[in-house]
Amino acid sequence: HIRGYIMSNPTAAMVVIGDEIIMGRTQDVNVKYLAQELTLVGIDLKEVRIVGDLTNDIVLAVNSLRENYRYVFTSGGIGPTHDDITSDAIAKAFCVSIDIRADALAILKSYYEKTNTELNSARLRMARIPESATLINNSISGAPGFKIGNVLVMAGVPKIFQSMLRDVLPSLVYGTPIKSESIRVETPEGELAQLLKNFAASFPDLAFASYPFREIGLLGTNIVIRGKKQTKIDTAKYKLLKKLNQ
Amino acid sequence: HIRGYIMSNPTAAMVVIGDEIIMGRTQDVNVKYLAQELTLVGIDLKEVRIVGDLTNDIVLAVNSLRENYRYVFTSGGIGPTHDDITSDAIAKAFCVSIDIRADALAILKSYYEKTNTELNSARLRMARIPESATLINNSISGAPGFKIGNVLVMAGVPKIFQSMLRDVLPSLVYGTPIKSESIRVETPEGELAQLLKNFAASFPDLAFASYPFREIGLLGTNIVIRGKKQTKIDTAKYKLLKKLNQ
Repeated sequence: HIRGYIMSNPTAAMVVIGDEIIMGRTQDVNVKYLAQELTLVGIDLKEVRIVGDLTNDIVLAVNSLRENYRYVFTSGGIGPTHDDITSDAIAKAFCVSIDIRADALAILKSYYEKTNTELNSARLRMARIPESATLINNSISGAPGFKIGNVLVMAGVPKIFQSMLRDVLPSLVYGTPIKSESIRVETPEGELAQLLKNFAASFPDLAFASYPFREIGLLGTNIVIRGKKQTKIDTAKYKLLKKLNQ
Repeated sequence: HIRGYIMSNPTAAMVVIGDEIIMGRTQDVNVKYLAQELTLVGIDLKEVRIVGDLTNDIVLAVNSLRENYRYVFTSGGIGPTHDDITSDAIAKAFCVSIDIRADALAILKSYYEKTNTELNSARLRMARIPESATLINNSISGAPGFKIGNVLVMAGVPKIFQSMLRDVLPSLVYGTPIKSESIRVETPEGELAQLLKNFAASFPDLAFASYPFREIGLLGTNIVIRGKKQTKIDTAKYKLLKKLNQ
């Protein structure tokens, strides 16, 4: 299995935080985005947990994952309202204090002055940062995320999440990116299974995955070959195409 | 907090299984669908875990969640190919044997006869069902899911996942559905926070959530009021609208 095979890549986990996700109001899109970005730099996303806006659930998820993975990313719950409890939950998970911090406050002051908006007490909450955390830049709406230990705390709004990830990604340890090639065939998955199993046995350092699709009047499969070495993937793809065209 | 408040509702968790999800190739849509359907029948989805196609990761997630929640739903990994390992992983999690079973085989035979398709050895794998499990009907493509203990094992293809959920949902214990009302306002979240906090304090058995949106030239908020009693929600909505229009 390809992801077991690449032993040396840094690992990561993610905690998606929000009642709107776990209650089905909002479609999460940050998992896919993070997974794609991490794949490109060879960091291996291994597990995602989605929890509601409940302190204990956040603390349990973060503390369990930060022990087991090199990096833990969180999304959601760092806005201005009373149900934004992620920052306090993270402070609790790390047993550190949390309060309005001068560096975060300066960022908020400058942002709200520029946009002619009042920095009221609700917005001030977004300057609450756990002791010893370093800030993550938010180029969209001012209020920063933060990094504490191996945990990176980011916003849930996709554009802000993406902005924060752009800021922190270069500071992380990269691994060997997993490359992939795809083949689309108009054959049902069940008729390719034996062939793919044989190829997986012949190329132990590649992974062969198949994703069935269904269009009007047509059952087909997208085959994806994954691995570290492009030349090996290309060889396997060439041989597979030859077999498929026989 | 509304979900802490409704103590008597059955709880649920979900395990999303698939390299295609955790590696960012595919956007999961089953979490949102399941969450919405469960909300309608008063089953409280509390936690979701997403893992890759790795036996140990599946076993760990399922065994941890089935101890803590009334129901555990899984999606993905029950197809015909070598990387479809969910059924075997579930058998391992429950320490039971797994083999081709007559009831599942009869369903596959009938389905593939009807569709003039060969029931080859790859497709036969989909008749492998853990000992003591009961089958879940698949009205889309034949191959069944199954229920073992409090774990419901279903397909990852959204249409099939939905078909299986339709089959099993009526057999579950329902709770009191959480109802909700929304208000859309063209005011940034940071200016509503104090008002929402006050309302949350005045209506301890309702939840007031806010979801910011950003359109061209406009920052706005969707306010969602959730609770068990529609009359209480309506009262709160009326009072909130009055405040907002002052």
